[in-house]
Amino acid sequence: MTLLEPQIVPSFVNGGWWSPAGETGAQAVMDASTGALVATVSSEGVDLAGAVEYARTVGQASLGQLTFHQRALLLKQLAQYLNGVKDELYALSAQTGATRFDSMIDIDGGIGVLFTFSSKGRREMPNSQVYVDGGVEALSKDGSFSGQHIYTRIPGVACQVNAFNFPVWGMLEKFAPAFIAGVPSIVKPATPTGYLTEAVVRHILDSGILPAGTLQLVSGSARDLLDHLDYRDLVAFTGSASTAMALKAHPNVVAGGVRFTSETDSLNAAILGPDAEPGTPEFDAYVASVVTEMTAKTGQKCTSIRRLIVPAGLTAAVADAVSDRIGRKVTVGDPRAEGVTMGPLASVDQRSEVLGSSRRLIDGGGRVLVGSLDAPEGMNPDGAFVSPLLLAFDDARSAAVHEIEAFGPVASIIEYDGLDDAIELAARGGGSLVATVATHDPEVARTLVLGIAAHHGRVLVLDRDDARSSTGHGSPVPHLVHGGPGRAGGSEELGGIRAVLHHMQRTAIQGSPAMLTAVTGDWRAGAPVRSDVHPFRKSLAELRIGDQVEAGPRVVTAEDIAAFAESTGDRFYAHTDQEAAEANPFFPGIVAHGYLLVSWAAGLFVDPAPGPVLANTGLENLRFVTPVSAGDGIRVTLTAKRITPRETEDYGEVRWDAVLHNQNDELVAAYDVLTLVAKRQPA
Amino acid sequence: MTLLEPQIVPSFVNGGWWSPAGETGAQAVMDASTGALVATVSSEGVDLAGAVEYARTVGQASLGQLTFHQRALLLKQLAQYLNGVKDELYALSAQTGATRFDSMIDIDGGIGVLFTFSSKGRREMPNSQVYVDGGVEALSKDGSFSGQHIYTRIPGVACQVNAFNFPVWGMLEKFAPAFIAGVPSIVKPATPTGYLTEAVVRHILDSGILPAGTLQLVSGSARDLLDHLDYRDLVAFTGSASTAMALKAHPNVVAGGVRFTSETDSLNAAILGPDAEPGTPEFDAYVASVVTEMTAKTGQKCTSIRRLIVPAGLTAAVADAVSDRIGRKVTVGDPRAEGVTMGPLASVDQRSEVLGSSRRLIDGGGRVLVGSLDAPEGMNPDGAFVSPLLLAFDDARSAAVHEIEAFGPVASIIEYDGLDDAIELAARGGGSLVATVATHDPEVARTLVLGIAAHHGRVLVLDRDDARSSTGHGSPVPHLVHGGPGRAGGSEELGGIRAVLHHMQRTAIQGSPAMLTAVTGDWRAGAPVRSDVHPFRKSLAELRIGDQVEAGPRVVTAEDIAAFAESTGDRFYAHTDQEAAEANPFFPGIVAHGYLLVSWAAGLFVDPAPGPVLANTGLENLRFVTPVSAGDGIRVTLTAKRITPRETEDYGEVRWDAVLHNQNDELVAAYDVLTLVAKRQPA
Repeated sequence: MTLLEPQIVPSFVNGGWWSPAGETGAQAVMDASTGALVATVSSEGVDLAGAVEYARTVGQASLGQLTFHQRALLLKQLAQYLNGVKDELYALSAQTGATRFDSMIDIDGGIGVLFTFSSKGRREMPNSQVYVDGGVEALSKDGSFSGQHIYTRIPGVACQVNAFNFPVWGMLEKFAPAFIAGVPSIVKPATPTGYLTEAVVRHILDSGILPAGTLQLVSGSARDLLDHLDYRDLVAFTGSASTAMALKAHPNVVAGGVRFTSETDSLNAAILGPDAEPGTPEFDAYVASVVTEMTAKTGQKCTSIRRLIVPAGLTAAVADAVSDRIGRKVTVGDPRAEGVTMGPLASVDQRSEVLGSSRRLIDGGGRVLVGSLDAPEGMNPDGAFVSPLLLAFDDARSAAVHEIEAFGPVASIIEYDGLDDAIELAARGGGSLVATVATHDPEVARTLVLGIAAHHGRVLVLDRDDARSSTGHGSPVPHLVHGGPGRAGGSEELGGIRAVLHHMQRTAIQGSPAMLTAVTGDWRAGAPVRSDVHPFRKSLAELRIGDQVEAGPRVVTAEDIAAFAESTGDRFYAHTDQEAAEANPFFPGIVAHGYLLVSWAAGLFVDPAPGPVLANTGLENLRFVTPVSAGDGIRVTLTAKRITPRETEDYGEVRWDAVLHNQNDELVAAYDVLTLVAKRQPA
Repeated sequence: MTLLEPQIVPSFVNGGWWSPAGETGAQAVMDASTGALVATVSSEGVDLAGAVEYARTVGQASLGQLTFHQRALLLKQLAQYLNGVKDELYALSAQTGATRFDSMIDIDGGIGVLFTFSSKGRREMPNSQVYVDGGVEALSKDGSFSGQHIYTRIPGVACQVNAFNFPVWGMLEKFAPAFIAGVPSIVKPATPTGYLTEAVVRHILDSGILPAGTLQLVSGSARDLLDHLDYRDLVAFTGSASTAMALKAHPNVVAGGVRFTSETDSLNAAILGPDAEPGTPEFDAYVASVVTEMTAKTGQKCTSIRRLIVPAGLTAAVADAVSDRIGRKVTVGDPRAEGVTMGPLASVDQRSEVLGSSRRLIDGGGRVLVGSLDAPEGMNPDGAFVSPLLLAFDDARSAAVHEIEAFGPVASIIEYDGLDDAIELAARGGGSLVATVATHDPEVARTLVLGIAAHHGRVLVLDRDDARSSTGHGSPVPHLVHGGPGRAGGSEELGGIRAVLHHMQRTAIQGSPAMLTAVTGDWRAGAPVRSDVHPFRKSLAELRIGDQVEAGPRVVTAEDIAAFAESTGDRFYAHTDQEAAEANPFFPGIVAHGYLLVSWAAGLFVDPAPGPVLANTGLENLRFVTPVSAGDGIRVTLTAKRITPRETEDYGEVRWDAVLHNQNDELVAAYDVLTLVAKRQPA
């Protein structure tokens, strides 16, 4: 599609682009500032049953050939590719009413999600198709039967129904974790801004980076999509509460077990701490955040601050500061015009919606402190322009302020009397995506945050230390969960690998060590081992889990312990003072340093000559179990436990299971040794 | 209540026992074997709005005064108390049709859940009220802004609606995790066996162990309970799919955000591997498991094996072996009679249900191989007795075998042709709680388990190694999740701490290090520190997070590295061979051992004299970042990060943040040091 010739926005299903036969029933989409026709949209006649089947077969099959790391790497390539076509996306984005800053949040923010998930997928997941969750649970005394949780991808399709306010970010933040999990996506953007999503999808497909069947697009209504889904599939919805409820009540969700998540708009609060008085850095940061949240994306963010909860008596001071800042910082207009910092709403329908909700807020007790319901002066009457509007409610418990959301540059102030009151007022939102707590007092922060946390998906503590570095109240970050209970939809997105796991099924596997090893790909104690050549002599290509070396025993003497204390400087009484060591409830007398034991263990298990093992990068989960005294002999068993080749390097990580025993076969210590090993033998 | 005088089963709500005014509308409950009246049940007129409010106020307040560990410890006391009153519970249980073995699963199994959760709560959770999830996410380059996920308890009530088949275990497995989370429970047992639940609740309350408002009981219908719930609350349901759907479609679930989980019965499969031919230990273990699952609890388990998926041609061999084993092992009768191994169903209504479903299976293509629909001979006609019934379907894709569940001692055999076929047949169950895969071939296990995992909550791999030690196909264990997708309800219970977290809200907290420290109770790098007396001189009562010692630098020499290699025996080339070390891509030449660095760090940070620090129990998350060469000087910073007093000991665990830097302030290594520290200074 181009900027100049409005045409019907196509869908991409079943491996090809698709447009309806005629324009009957097509919906017209207008430029938010000028009212000019941008495109028409219709999905009438699209084969959604076919799209679901195509995803479940072709999409699942092509993703099934890739590991988590391989998929993650494709996301990085995709992000780099999209970085090269941003100019076109920015031009389309301006038509939706977005300023350059707004577009950055949507477009660069969306690309940033791909980079973050690519990085986390490779750093925090194994390079395989099974994600192991938690430790082994022993279920028998003799070790022959135990349990292990794993995640495997759901065997269906992720249908992603997005809101109009973030046509790029909204798509990519849902697509990225599904893709890493190995689950194909069907994207259904909101009609008013779906032409921008279509442009992104077109570029993604043109890039040739994605395997077949992994991304489909439905432009227009979702129609009968849910009728074709079952428990193998997932619907991830962002949008209004009323649409969320209609979807959630669908028989295939209630009885058919379709996995359903929703993010709905919420009445997010910002609490001004009692210490954050006018003149403090926290007060200024609070006011700046409020103005940003009111005006960025013209207030059309599900995370925008709607309720300012301030100490009793501070309404006027806050309103004055907000008014002053709006006057200095906010210029309303066509975002393509010089100097404009706040564009129109996305459509004239949205303008009607926002003005209507604002009137209901006023009818419910809101007094206008800043702005008005009148259209801003000098604007194109066909554009969806509104002014920032700040209200105050004298009764902090007015139902309207806690229940009515005007999805635009509209916020309301209420006052609290004591921290418990502030907590209760915040909770009256009935569950929100995010709240800000502005305070520099750790006790206030602890009380407020723990008081409201269970009602929120995210809480930002704003103070002088993070005011400049903060990513902001309104910005979900891919590292942290986005979502919230109750009115916010009762679900989670993002949160790093957590979002990938939402696209997978957790299953408890029970069995013998050999079988748990076979299923997880991680070696488990008791599973078969191989002790041929020393495993340090094997490249990543030759090494297998279960490859093992046993070494020792080496007997510890009193002189060894004394010498170790001397050379390291660790003269802790348990290693140097027989009387004090005997008085210790855990030791029989002087014992060897734990550090001596692991150092000696390395001395026993390493094969020192140059070879494929490159470095010891760390240890994990080290536990000292049985103390070692002079005269005890320790032996070590080292077994390759997990092998993680890196996709972009000529080496990978090998995690080794290390256990130390004494001469009585008692467990002395257990830990994981982390190493880097070359993929091939050195030349 | 007593065994001799049938009376109305009371409820316990709003802090007191309650019975309906009259017996109008009360439901009669009969002894499953004799048909004699045991009790009547009615909740007509009970104040459920009051019960919900009582839990949210009194229950939340009393649990809010306790930490995770304190709550966990109360569960252990409760388990010990219940162990002392088992005789009465066993007598009541026999009236429900349960054999002594069945009662053990229910009663001892339930008490076992309390012990396991008590232990896990104290070992795997902090001794506080905030559970930290995952690591710190850096969100700014300068470290002034980062994120951290926490869990805090939901601010409402957990309503637990249970099935008739496990009146004790069903209650306790839901109650235990809610209690540790700090969420009060309202228990609603199924009417036919609720008198046994009532007896357990009465004993629990009599024990005086539980704080006020933490456990309420509704005997009889749940009535308008859901009308009083919102997003702060949780409903955990176990029972029929139809009831689950009715609850899930309730407006307060769909629109009100009530957290809803369900476990429903499912058509669990047991796949006999191609290697598990007659005569192998796996074949025998498979047959034994099938007979156990058909007859334990008279087949009234949501986890029972309903579908035997066996290699083509093996139906007769499996049926013969099952028939033979039933003949040798199963004696149907009143469980109070000598030698009886399978009691009646729980009620004559259930008998009608099972016989009806069995007929529908036969009408759908099932051939009777073992047993019949006739009542077993010589039984009391007023009892709910049935015979074990094994069917075969010649068409493995018959709808009936994958959709109709006879909730009694009934199972069906179908045949598969190749592993892919077996996987597809298992998946036709539409989502199940558990499947067994009987095989001794690791490749078969891997293919089958990964092929069916996403359709299951649990998969048991049965072979000669675990046949004797296995906890069994049908037994959920508290360590592992219980639940499954699709027909199984789409939810999770148990799974250790996972179940506790299902009663808590995950929230992303963003802020400066000082604020994250204040909220989580864990010290974060960059938060305030205190460096007065050496922290090793402080008892647990004196130590605070942020207490810190800095030490060093100590310069590393070539001789130190050589001596360490010599004394430990760790002569890895990177520490001994300049040329080979230079050729390594990560090292500038010979570098110090990582073990030398952490040993020296201890030498720098310990305060050696006897004092409150008792032992170093381990290290976690050790990463070596910058290599150290001869001439470099290292310094260490050790800071108290988390303090976990033990409830039942005079010491606790202190986790220290340890970081090593070199003379250029580059990070050399980072890790957590785990220690035990006495609560008071030694005498």
